[in-house]
Amino acid sequence: MVLKRLKEIENATVVAAAPLTEFVGSLMHAAGMREDESLEAAEVLVDADLNGIDTHGVGYNLELHYLNGLMSEYINPRPNTQITHETPGTATVDADRGIGLVAGRFAMNLAITKARETGIASVAVPNSSHYGAAGYYARMAVPHDMIGLALSSGGTRVIIPMGGRDPWMGTNPIAMAAPANEEPPFVIDMATTVVSFGKVSIARHFGVEIPEGWAVTESGEPITDPANSPPAHGQPPLGETHEHGAQKGTGLGMMSDILCAILPGEPVSGLLPDNPKGGRFCHYFQAIRIDAFRPADEFKSNMDEMLRALKNQPTSDGFDRVMYPGQPEAEYYQERVNSGIPLPEHTIAYFRQMAVELGVEYTLGD
Amino acid sequence: MVLKRLKEIENATVVAAAPLTEFVGSLMHAAGMREDESLEAAEVLVDADLNGIDTHGVGYNLELHYLNGLMSEYINPRPNTQITHETPGTATVDADRGIGLVAGRFAMNLAITKARETGIASVAVPNSSHYGAAGYYARMAVPHDMIGLALSSGGTRVIIPMGGRDPWMGTNPIAMAAPANEEPPFVIDMATTVVSFGKVSIARHFGVEIPEGWAVTESGEPITDPANSPPAHGQPPLGETHEHGAQKGTGLGMMSDILCAILPGEPVSGLLPDNPKGGRFCHYFQAIRIDAFRPADEFKSNMDEMLRALKNQPTSDGFDRVMYPGQPEAEYYQERVNSGIPLPEHTIAYFRQMAVELGVEYTLGD
Repeated sequence: MVLKRLKEIENATVVAAAPLTEFVGSLMHAAGMREDESLEAAEVLVDADLNGIDTHGVGYNLELHYLNGLMSEYINPRPNTQITHETPGTATVDADRGIGLVAGRFAMNLAITKARETGIASVAVPNSSHYGAAGYYARMAVPHDMIGLALSSGGTRVIIPMGGRDPWMGTNPIAMAAPANEEPPFVIDMATTVVSFGKVSIARHFGVEIPEGWAVTESGEPITDPANSPPAHGQPPLGETHEHGAQKGTGLGMMSDILCAILPGEPVSGLLPDNPKGGRFCHYFQAIRIDAFRPADEFKSNMDEMLRALKNQPTSDGFDRVMYPGQPEAEYYQERVNSGIPLPEHTIAYFRQMAVELGVEYTLGD
Repeated sequence: MVLKRLKEIENATVVAAAPLTEFVGSLMHAAGMREDESLEAAEVLVDADLNGIDTHGVGYNLELHYLNGLMSEYINPRPNTQITHETPGTATVDADRGIGLVAGRFAMNLAITKARETGIASVAVPNSSHYGAAGYYARMAVPHDMIGLALSSGGTRVIIPMGGRDPWMGTNPIAMAAPANEEPPFVIDMATTVVSFGKVSIARHFGVEIPEGWAVTESGEPITDPANSPPAHGQPPLGETHEHGAQKGTGLGMMSDILCAILPGEPVSGLLPDNPKGGRFCHYFQAIRIDAFRPADEFKSNMDEMLRALKNQPTSDGFDRVMYPGQPEAEYYQERVNSGIPLPEHTIAYFRQMAVELGVEYTLGD
């Protein structure tokens, strides 16, 4: 596994979650955000690091999306977030070009509140920016005994639709979380490509090889050594080829575009000119109250039973165990809450530089 | 494409949709169903044939699931379908072991009715049987200017979860439909395996080869010549291998299990003993009212724009054109409404035999 190898080769500085959240929040605050909202945003990023989702933590996207975006005012640091349409079970929330990390929490909380009354609720968010790991928002439903969904679309075009030659959609992730009783929750958080584009970029940065099917050149040839190849032209959708279901990956990406972008009235990325700053993003959230369908404690016991049965399945060659979506993240979480979050040299150097540039005290290790 | 080849090798009898619906309905009525419900059920099957989804039409599942099920009373021909839980935006509908084709229409109509009030609504259906092509129910939302979703879980275990050795879930399909204005609607209807199990079974029946990744033996070896291989032990999830996203296919299948089975209180197929009759099924439906988020005509115009832009994308080698999910089905529909539905010899022979057995007049061609 490339990601595993990337985690190993980092010459890491290990930092605890609380001071990391405070420091990253102070950078975002200094870049123009309200203090409370900067901490909310930092929490989402550090949560990704705690869960082992290094592609969506503080190390990669803070530089690529958030601080750059805030400082160039491509992201509006003080947005006037507004509900533009509303029914008992739905809302459209215009994020006013604000940071997706804050708009996402606001919108998911609104969906949870509405679902208390109607049993299920959805909130669509146009005019936003990158919101980090989709799974965060889906998991917000779990403590309320709800099932959560979170989708996002937009950003840089990377998915080459089946039969096409050029990238046409963002990685358009789909996430769902459902609570169990004693087991960690089920959490799927998937790009609708074969892998997230972040993994290709990180492999390029660290000089690590990648499998065929993760990224292709302009002529459609697979890229396996991204550090010694031209930048990826695009990524195949999940399924990769027609015979192996690329039309399904394409369709899942389009589902995200329809619910996140077309439903609340945002153009899909395939219809926008290239944007060197990464394009706009839009989101879709849903909360489903479990006890609208049956008692929640019965549901959660049955979830335990399902997840345990899956974990106890006999393994195939090359696997030590069968895991369910959400289980590896929960294991990282335990480990990193106890031992801290490893950050690569590049990120520490970037933090130091930004601390100077934004006049913030650097409070983390070397 | 194997499916294309299958469609070509059939020594077909061509039948128009209306008499086919009437004949298939009369068989189901003679097998114990109410006359109106038998016609409702037949409409769903013939609609799959019209849309070119031969794996889910009258030819394959009538024998495998419906008539066998009704005649053995494994499917309850006269169920007492009941709402057991209800909120403004949700319901649980116990299908009382009735035919999924009728329970599915009832439940999706209920979701559509509820969504008129709350903007979005979901209905979960435990204790049901096979309901045909999931896309049918998702498409029911389209004339109401709604987005429809339909999932199903249960049945014979075929999906081998990533890292596992044995099949553990049904193919657990996920479908979504969204209306456009002038273009045919977007409709994704996908098994969470690489391909539906029906395609493997049909390839076996007709002696056609299949690509690696569609089915495997007990030791995990790929099956490519199903007619000359032992019956498939199971199917890889969408993504096929860990490096290519098999954890995503596994997770999508589990999403179906959670929403269709655990949410309304049905055991997932992985926890049930083997069932030679194909196991129980359960479903989950959702309707989303578009004008709860923005004016529906604007949404539909933007859908046209998106779908046309995708169709006009430059193609890669081996493809004549880029198509969107729902487009091939719409093209089959036009063709088969005009020219009729081709049925293989095997199906015609089965119809004749069932007509005799059930005392129904055989009214179709040779």
